[in-house]
Amino acid sequence: MDLEFTHEYLTHEAFMQEALVEAQKAYDMDEVPIGAVVVKDGKIIGRGHNLRESEKDPILHAEIIAIRQAAQTLGGWRLTDCDIYVTIEPCPMCAGAILQARIRQLVFGARDPKAGCVGSLYNLLQDARFNHQTEVVEAVLEEECSHIMKDYFRQKRKKYDKF
Amino acid sequence: MDLEFTHEYLTHEAFMQEALVEAQKAYDMDEVPIGAVVVKDGKIIGRGHNLRESEKDPILHAEIIAIRQAAQTLGGWRLTDCDIYVTIEPCPMCAGAILQARIRQLVFGARDPKAGCVGSLYNLLQDARFNHQTEVVEAVLEEECSHIMKDYFRQKRKKYDKF
Repeated sequence: MDLEFTHEYLTHEAFMQEALVEAQKAYDMDEVPIGAVVVKDGKIIGRGHNLRESEKDPILHAEIIAIRQAAQTLGGWRLTDCDIYVTIEPCPMCAGAILQARIRQLVFGARDPKAGCVGSLYNLLQDARFNHQTEVVEAVLEEECSHIMKDYFRQKRKKYDKF
Repeated sequence: MDLEFTHEYLTHEAFMQEALVEAQKAYDMDEVPIGAVVVKDGKIIGRGHNLRESEKDPILHAEIIAIRQAAQTLGGWRLTDCDIYVTIEPCPMCAGAILQARIRQLVFGARDPKAGCVGSLYNLLQDARFNHQTEVVEAVLEEECSHIMKDYFRQKRKKYDKF
């Protein structure tokens, strides 16, 4: 067994667990449960969960909030040497934000076949025509990341089934 | 001559002129000179210019600022029946934000062959696989929108030529 891989994978799981903590916060606020954390040198420097409905703001996806907080922590817009952990494959806006911030690596949990732009519909992070590319690792705690989404939408459907 | 087209085009020019006013504000702050306005029922309800350097925030492109202001004005994240005018073809992040906000129409000035995602490298706004599509009109005041960018980068190059 490749020990380095194992160690790396455990680190990925630990940070994804923190992204899931963020996703749960969104769930508890009746927001689509997606969470994200930005990590530099083994430390979380930004975190966020989806707040689109509560803040009435189309931009406020988990990734955007985590990236802005990380930029504030570092005092600059370049998040070089930073990694972002997100529970669900990013949409075009968030994939674009990851490129804009020059993030080194994206680790995500489950794919979004309907809007995902990091493997599903497009792979915006690895297009050599852009001035930045971001490494991608996927399927970390995939089951858990997918489960909280399925559970959220199941509850929603149940609510509307009453009528 | 098609009068309806002419009328529509003059309206587009008038709002693009306002986007150019925003671009000039960015230029004066030594930011990449891109501006945007969001329009509903013939009124500007959001405006913005690039503030990435001054605010040290990778998210703060002109479109994002204008969209957030419009959402605040309307009190909700859905900018249905709104149009956005931008001096330069949007990047993936901003094209994605336009989709997220459910904007009806994008009117832009000049193409960005290196990062544009509304015709140049991709056309994210007219992919039927996403849950929203946005109409696109391009080349409105193209010359002016392109000129202010070229002028900005010429000045920048001159500055570094001294050394």
